[in-house]
Amino acid sequence: MQAAIMEAGRIRVAELADPEPGPGEVLVRTRACGLCASDLHVLHHGEQLVQWSRHAGGPFDMDLSRPVVLGHEYCAEVVDHGPRTERRLRTGTRVTSAPVVIRDGRVGAVGLCNDLPGGFGEYMRLSEDLLLEVPDALDDARAALTEPVSVGMYYVRAARLRHDDVVLVVGCGAIGLAVLAALRREKVRRILVSDFSEERRQLALANGAHSVIDPAAQAPMADGPPSVIFECVGMPGVLDEVMRQAAHGARIMVAGWCLQTDHVFTPVAHTKGLIVQFGGGPAPEDFETAHRALGEGEIEVSSWLGAQIGLSEVADALEAMRDPANPIRTVVDPRQS
Amino acid sequence: MQAAIMEAGRIRVAELADPEPGPGEVLVRTRACGLCASDLHVLHHGEQLVQWSRHAGGPFDMDLSRPVVLGHEYCAEVVDHGPRTERRLRTGTRVTSAPVVIRDGRVGAVGLCNDLPGGFGEYMRLSEDLLLEVPDALDDARAALTEPVSVGMYYVRAARLRHDDVVLVVGCGAIGLAVLAALRREKVRRILVSDFSEERRQLALANGAHSVIDPAAQAPMADGPPSVIFECVGMPGVLDEVMRQAAHGARIMVAGWCLQTDHVFTPVAHTKGLIVQFGGGPAPEDFETAHRALGEGEIEVSSWLGAQIGLSEVADALEAMRDPANPIRTVVDPRQS
Repeated sequence: MQAAIMEAGRIRVAELADPEPGPGEVLVRTRACGLCASDLHVLHHGEQLVQWSRHAGGPFDMDLSRPVVLGHEYCAEVVDHGPRTERRLRTGTRVTSAPVVIRDGRVGAVGLCNDLPGGFGEYMRLSEDLLLEVPDALDDARAALTEPVSVGMYYVRAARLRHDDVVLVVGCGAIGLAVLAALRREKVRRILVSDFSEERRQLALANGAHSVIDPAAQAPMADGPPSVIFECVGMPGVLDEVMRQAAHGARIMVAGWCLQTDHVFTPVAHTKGLIVQFGGGPAPEDFETAHRALGEGEIEVSSWLGAQIGLSEVADALEAMRDPANPIRTVVDPRQS
Repeated sequence: MQAAIMEAGRIRVAELADPEPGPGEVLVRTRACGLCASDLHVLHHGEQLVQWSRHAGGPFDMDLSRPVVLGHEYCAEVVDHGPRTERRLRTGTRVTSAPVVIRDGRVGAVGLCNDLPGGFGEYMRLSEDLLLEVPDALDDARAALTEPVSVGMYYVRAARLRHDDVVLVVGCGAIGLAVLAALRREKVRRILVSDFSEERRQLALANGAHSVIDPAAQAPMADGPPSVIFECVGMPGVLDEVMRQAAHGARIMVAGWCLQTDHVFTPVAHTKGLIVQFGGGPAPEDFETAHRALGEGEIEVSSWLGAQIGLSEVADALEAMRDPANPIRTVVDPRQS
């Protein structure tokens, strides 16, 4: 198959062997796959993640010197069924799924393991159990965004918000917008969104934020102290800064994944009695909630979407994600070369 | 007064003006004051704490180039009453208190501000409202340990343990032992204590740990996965290591204060969905609980105590705290020179 492969810190289009669906797995053809900031991070800072995952039996089973096909936000269609499948969904059915496969009792991350190619390639092997049929009302690109939306669903669920919580979302990328969508769905009364980018702040307002903050112009907490803060950036130093700005007793939900060693000055957190909650990841229920909310139009992600591109444009499009003036999500269709 | 002063990173005995009790304050004479590892940390790594506290209006109001009298674990006797006091406790009454004074609506830390000398000097000014009378059954040295015991009380209270929690205490210094005492008081069913030092592990067993772990010899989690971990070390890298060793879904109560910038690799925490809860500090209720438990013999800290020393020995005794073979607490009596 054709794929935009990551190898030794670079992305290029190459021909790979088609994946073979294992027991309980289905072979699918990718129709659309979102480019995620964490793909860019893995490209440039993947070593520590791999090292730790290998040591701890984690889900990121990558040899970065060998080809990895990134892409964990996808819409695809069923092509073939592997051994010991129920053949529940017919060939041609459009599907999405949480990007994990359970192999020999261990979880593997689709698009973040050498042998589980993601959606930046023509074909993937996915767990039949996790496949969700995409309704006709939802086009390929929006269906592909089920995964980032599910992340927002998860973090807001995990936060167990109280009725009177004032919520601040730090960073208005895909995860920040997904958290915002989930907060709106929960009818949270006061939602602030902070982002350095004017474009992103406008996007936050268009997506239902009650007010927005430019952290360069004002301390993020000037508008009343938030009781719960969602950190949706995942770059070194952001958690430290959030802890410094947080009010006494605040809870910080860390939704941004920082793939480099981060630094924190924890006396700040001690003095203020902060609680810092890390993620886990979305559970199947969060993926299903996101899928349903998208299918029923309860959550609308059209404003996230930019260009649809072919495989040869993936490398440049990933680097372009650094500029917040660009759209939240570029989607690759590997059927275009 | 005579005091062991900290100035420009060194401790020496010097003559200082006696403190003047302000409104609502009582002048007391120190009878015993514990040497705490955080005193040693402030001596060598205080700059960041001061910098942040100054920026954020925190309680550590120190110019490190000017004399600071450390010492926040004390037993003292009432000498004089300042203006607008109720004179509730007579001259000569033995007292202890949480080491804070509220001045002009701001909290100041006794022993960690230039103008709030701590117990490494002959006299202190303390808030009358916070003074607790020490019962006759409790000698000066043990009464001085009310403060570290209150820290354990606080963290265990803040942890809101469930009946079936398996608890690991990482580090068996004063805070580790205080947490252990509070856990025993809560009748927690399974308490593991981890420390590199054989002496400290023996001390943990003598103080009621159900089992002890040498982290050099075995992974701390080999004995069943703890659901709640109390980090009681407070040195750079320990929180990161605890996150790496923690089981999925564990909660980490960070009771150790790390006064240097710490480093963490948070994908470990994300993948396992860890919750990291920072302190705040003991509330008055925790101090009162500790005071009552010590006075009634419910918590016994005799095994913590080493030598009683005079002011001239403070500098060396602080450095000696680095060696875990030394006792948990050396107590200075500033009435001895």
